[in-house]
Amino acid sequence: MNHPKEVIQVVKIGGNVIDNTEALANFLCLFASIQGPKLLIHGGGKIATHMAKEMGIESVMIEGRRVTDEASLRIVTMVYAGWINKSIVAALQAQGCSSLGLSGPDGGIVLAKKRNPIPIDYGFVGDIEEVNGKALASLIQAGYAPVFAPITSDVHGQLLNTNADTLAQAIAIALSDFFEVKLVYCFEKVGVLSDPTNEESLIPSINAAYFEELKANGTVSAGMIPKLENALKAISKGVHLVRLCHADNLLNQDLGTNILP
Amino acid sequence: MNHPKEVIQVVKIGGNVIDNTEALANFLCLFASIQGPKLLIHGGGKIATHMAKEMGIESVMIEGRRVTDEASLRIVTMVYAGWINKSIVAALQAQGCSSLGLSGPDGGIVLAKKRNPIPIDYGFVGDIEEVNGKALASLIQAGYAPVFAPITSDVHGQLLNTNADTLAQAIAIALSDFFEVKLVYCFEKVGVLSDPTNEESLIPSINAAYFEELKANGTVSAGMIPKLENALKAISKGVHLVRLCHADNLLNQDLGTNILP
Repeated sequence: MNHPKEVIQVVKIGGNVIDNTEALANFLCLFASIQGPKLLIHGGGKIATHMAKEMGIESVMIEGRRVTDEASLRIVTMVYAGWINKSIVAALQAQGCSSLGLSGPDGGIVLAKKRNPIPIDYGFVGDIEEVNGKALASLIQAGYAPVFAPITSDVHGQLLNTNADTLAQAIAIALSDFFEVKLVYCFEKVGVLSDPTNEESLIPSINAAYFEELKANGTVSAGMIPKLENALKAISKGVHLVRLCHADNLLNQDLGTNILP
Repeated sequence: MNHPKEVIQVVKIGGNVIDNTEALANFLCLFASIQGPKLLIHGGGKIATHMAKEMGIESVMIEGRRVTDEASLRIVTMVYAGWINKSIVAALQAQGCSSLGLSGPDGGIVLAKKRNPIPIDYGFVGDIEEVNGKALASLIQAGYAPVFAPITSDVHGQLLNTNADTLAQAIAIALSDFFEVKLVYCFEKVGVLSDPTNEESLIPSINAAYFEELKANGTVSAGMIPKLENALKAISKGVHLVRLCHADNLLNQDLGTNILP
């Protein structure tokens, strides 16, 4: 008989929370209080865009995704893997949470590939090829809470900008061989809303068929579509539970939108 | 009978090598080829100063050390722990060296304290209080080559800018309980020179008494004084071998200046 797998909380924290000092501090306090194995993936929010502007570099976005030329790659690496990652790790450490700030190349944990420039050339943007779940699980079993910045690299050592929601999905799937994974996408809304202007219009659960319906009738659009695609991929590939919720509700498993297979 | 300790190479790479793309690539190739346990500490060179300039922030230096206000702290964290650290890790990973990019707060490995603002207020500059050699040794024994950026934090989670030579010294001493440590300070000179303009004037070895003499007669000055103080502290506190050499001579243990107790 196999032993039941230990539970791990894999948490993605969104950019709008990171941009708000108070909301971020509150969220990190909740994250630090989670007992047992846990892992955090963060995005970069608008800080990279502000930083680029200060340096006179224009941020070009296509369908909400950053076109990453060499100057932008340097900025996102500095902001995500440097300033945000180390600020979060230092804050968690001060609360007694033994976190370990990582990016894709660290420990060879995430291998990515530069995205094909056809049909849209996003520049130095990486699609994930492989996550070394075994190496990551070993660090977690040694007592560390990894904190991932969405910067990866390819086999040639080229750094690449990678979508944080996708990184969370790929990490959660890779860890499913070793843990019972609970994946939570935390952001500034209470979950997926049928009316984005009305926080009362929470959709309590979504499965693949319902997602197609919501997409077809325009209820979900823009950035919510790839986020839900990632969530659905995770639940279909071995992740035990997937939930989208407000950052303040991280610890309350009854709140938010549950993703069903 | 105790088993003999395993040897570890602890290498500090200086800023002038990091500023030179070709010299850095050559150095990383040598570092990757070291067999057995190894660890790298890097500085930031002039990249942080360039970056600050691009953002209209003035870099103030006192006795060769950066005065770190809030804006400068953000820049050095971004440049050292973000761009330089992840570029080095990705390059090493591409050469099959399983490196792990770290800063002080990661894994709670380095605890620092903000320097007393009297007599000189250096701002967010950290002096090292403690290195958790056991945690670091465990990561190394798990097969990783840690790559450290000279950013630390205090018990409150405040990030701090820390001298990379001093960090190398403190890490080397802390690892001496677990390994036979060989500490190498690599830079752009062949070693300590009696005439800084003449590469033929290498001083093959320096001990504490000779250092006092060299200081008194002005042979060593400026940045070389704290570097040698760090080297002498390391050799007096359990580090097995300490050497200063040209980055190209990393693998040749006969070249450079040896530090003697």
